Amino acid sequence: MQENTPVLTLMTDFGHGGIFAGVMKGVIAGIAPKALVIDLTHNIPPFDVVQAAFKLRQAYRYFPAETIHVVVVDPGVGSERKAVAMRSGGHMFVAPDNGVLCLIDEEAGHEELVEIAEKGFFLPNISASFHGRDIFAPAAAHLAAGIEMKAMGSPLESLCPLKILHPEVKNDQSLAGTVLWCDRFGNLITNVPACMIAESAAPRFHVGETVVEGLSRTYASVPEGELLAMIGSFGMLEFAVHLGNAAERLSAGPGTLVRITLG
Amino acid sequence: MQENTPVLTLMTDFGHGGIFAGVMKGVIAGIAPKALVIDLTHNIPPFDVVQAAFKLRQAYRYFPAETIHVVVVDPGVGSERKAVAMRSGGHMFVAPDNGVLCLIDEEAGHEELVEIAEKGFFLPNISASFHGRDIFAPAAAHLAAGIEMKAMGSPLESLCPLKILHPEVKNDQSLAGTVLWCDRFGNLITNVPACMIAESAAPRFHVGETVVEGLSRTYASVPEGELLAMIGSFGMLEFAVHLGNAAERLSAGPGTLVRITLG
Amino acid sequence: MQENTPVLTLMTDFGHGGIFAGVMKGVIAGIAPKALVIDLTHNIPPFDVVQAAFKLRQAYRYFPAETIHVVVVDPGVGSERKAVAMRSGGHMFVAPDNGVLCLIDEEAGHEELVEIAEKGFFLPNISASFHGRDIFAPAAAHLAAGIEMKAMGSPLESLCPLKILHPEVKNDQSLAGTVLWCDRFGNLITNVPACMIAESAAPRFHVGETVVEGLSRTYASVPEGELLAMIGSFGMLEFAVHLGNAAERLSAGPGTLVRITLG
Repeated sequence: MQENTPVLTLMTDFGHGGIFAGVMKGVIAGIAPKALVIDLTHNIPPFDVVQAAFKLRQAYRYFPAETIHVVVVDPGVGSERKAVAMRSGGHMFVAPDNGVLCLIDEEAGHEELVEIAEKGFFLPNISASFHGRDIFAPAAAHLAAGIEMKAMGSPLESLCPLKILHPEVKNDQSLAGTVLWCDRFGNLITNVPACMIAESAAPRFHVGETVVEGLSRTYASVPEGELLAMIGSFGMLEFAVHLGNAAERLSAGPGTLVRITLG
Repeated sequence: MQENTPVLTLMTDFGHGGIFAGVMKGVIAGIAPKALVIDLTHNIPPFDVVQAAFKLRQAYRYFPAETIHVVVVDPGVGSERKAVAMRSGGHMFVAPDNGVLCLIDEEAGHEELVEIAEKGFFLPNISASFHGRDIFAPAAAHLAAGIEMKAMGSPLESLCPLKILHPEVKNDQSLAGTVLWCDRFGNLITNVPACMIAESAAPRFHVGETVVEGLSRTYASVPEGELLAMIGSFGMLEFAVHLGNAAERLSAGPGTLVRITLG
Repeated sequence: MQENTPVLTLMTDFGHGGIFAGVMKGVIAGIAPKALVIDLTHNIPPFDVVQAAFKLRQAYRYFPAETIHVVVVDPGVGSERKAVAMRSGGHMFVAPDNGVLCLIDEEAGHEELVEIAEKGFFLPNISASFHGRDIFAPAAAHLAAGIEMKAMGSPLESLCPLKILHPEVKNDQSLAGTVLWCDRFGNLITNVPACMIAESAAPRFHVGETVVEGLSRTYASVPEGELLAMIGSFGMLEFAVHLGNAAERLSAGPGTLVRITLG
C-alpha cells in the first residue's frame, strides 16, 4: 500500500526547546525529499536508553513495513561506540550501538546488522556532539533513498547488550517488576508483560504499602477516582486511577518496585 | 487547489512525552500513505473536552476543504460512549461522541453524522485504553483514502450534548463570561465572542478587583506593561499585557469569571 | 535533488500549548499543498528575537537550497513594523523586520530584500495579533507555490538592525562573551564562535568563580561528572558536564558572562 513514500521515524532525548530535531529533518529532506518523517518522541529523559528501548519496541510494529526507525539517545556521542543499522521484523533501525535496539533483536532477531562506517553517507564535517545530524540522519535518509544497508559498512555479529530491567521471577507464585515511566495522565507503566500474569485468576499487586486486587479490563471498570491495575494498550501491566492520577496517588514513578502475587 | 493530498489534523490530550501521537501517524501512514498529517495540538489538558471543543472550532476553518479533523480527548475510553464521524461546513470530523464536536454542529450544522462501528475500518485488536490508535486513526485514514462516511456505520440523529460554558447574559447591559485558557504569553482567552460586545461604545471589564475600560485594537495600542482587553485573533475577548503577562498580573486562569458592563 | 517538493521551516515563540503552529500549517496546506513543512522550534522564549536570530543562523544551512524559512517571533505584532522577505545564501526567509534576519544578512548578505505588502498574498481578514497565520504563512506559501519574491512588495535597502550580543574583544589576550541559552542537557551555549579562540593554545574560561582550562574535543574527553569547555556542534563555545548538567553545576543560564583569556 505504501508505494513510493519511504517512512522514517525519529526518537530522541533532545526535547523541543532546540532546533536539533528540525535540523535532522532538514538533512533528511536534502537526501530523501520524498520521505515522510514522523516524530515518535523527542522527550525520552536525557540518556535514558532503557526507556527508549521499551518505547521503540512498543511503537515500531504500528508503522508500515520497511519503515526506518532512527533513535538518537546517545550518551556516548563522540566516544568509540559504534553506529549501527539493523533489519528486523520487516523494519529498519538506525541507532548508536548502546543497547537501544536490543529488545527488538531479542524478540524478532535480525536479518541484517551492519556498522554504519562508510563516510560517504555522512555529512562532510562530523561534529563531536551531534551525530544525529551528522551520521544518523544522513545514513537513514540514504536508506530511504534506496541505498542498501550492506553498503553502509561491515556486518556485525551482535549488538552491544543492554542492562534491561526484566521482571524477576521469584517463584511460580511471585514476581518483582519495576515502573518504567509515568505518562501524562499519571498512569504508571511497568516492565511486566501481559503474558507473565495472564494465567493467574486472582493476581495481587503491591506498590509500597498499597495493594491492588485483580486486573481491570478498562479505566471505566472501576468507579471514578479508584485505583486499578490493567494491561495497557501496548501489552504491559500498568496502574491507573479512573479519571485521576496514579503516580500522585501512589507517590510512585520510574524505578518504583512492584511485587506481584499470582493467585 | 488540494489535488490528491488529503489533509488530516490531530488534536489530543496525550502531551509530547509519549509515543501516542507518533503511533497514530504510523497507523495512518499504513492506510493513507499520501495523507498530510498536521498536529493541531497534543496539549489539551487531560480530559478537557470543553477546551478541545473551543480550539477545534477556532482552528478548522483555516484548513483546506475536505480536511479530516481527528480529536482524541476521550475520558470515556473503554466505556460505552460511541465513536462518530461528522461532515460539517465542508470538513470532516472524527471523534468520541462526548460533546467535543458540539460547537461546530451548533454553528454550522451537519451534513452527515454516523456512528463509527464497522470493525473492518479498525485495527484488528482493539485495546481498552487507546482508541486513538485502534479506532480513530484507522477510521480517519480510511476516510482520507476515499472510503465514504456512510460505510463506517449507521446514521445518528444527533450528538451527545456538551456542557458548554456559554457567556451568561444578565440583562441588556451586563454579561458574565469565563476565562477558558491562558496561552504561552499569559494572554487570557475567554468564552465571549466579539459579537456580544461589538455594539457597545464603552464596555467595561471586571476581573476580580481589576477593571479594564474599553477595547484596544492591538497589544501595541497601550504602553508597554499595561493591561488591555481586545478581540483576539480567533474572535474571542481576551486580556493581555503589552509585552507582559496578563495571567500573572491578574492572578487569573481557566475558570476565572469576567463581568462585562456594556456602555 | 529536491525536485518538486518545496520545503518550509517554522520557528516561533508560540510553544506547543496552542493551535497556532497547526493553524499556520493549515493555511500553508491550502495554498501550497505539496510543500513539506518542518518545525525548527516553537519554543523560542516569548519575544526573544536574539535567540531566534542565533538559532536560525545555526539551522538554515542544513536545509536544501531554496528552502523558505519562516520566523514568527514578533513582539511588535500589530504595530508599524514591516514584514519582509529576503533571499540570502540560496535560501529564502520570511519574518517581521525586527532584526531576526540580521545575523544571516551580516554573514551572507542578501540577493533580494522586499517588504511584504501585497495584500493579495495575505488572508482576507488580518487580525491585530496573529500575523503568523494572516500574513507570514500565506506569503511564504505563495513563495513555495512559485510566486516571485519581487511580486510581494517593494524592494528594501536594508533590514532594521538588531542589538546583537557579539563578544567583546578586550585586547588580544582577552574576550568577554555571554551565555545565550541552555539546552535540555544543561549545556550552556555562548555567543563566542570557534574562530575567536581557535588560535589560542591554552585558553582559560571564567564563569563566575569557576575556571575551566583548555578546550575538550568531546564530552567523553573528560571523566563522567567533570566540567568542560568545547566547541559545540554549531561552532560556538559551550560548557558541558560529561553525563551531567553544566547549568546546574555553574548556577548559570542565559545572560551569564564568560571571560576568556587566550594563552
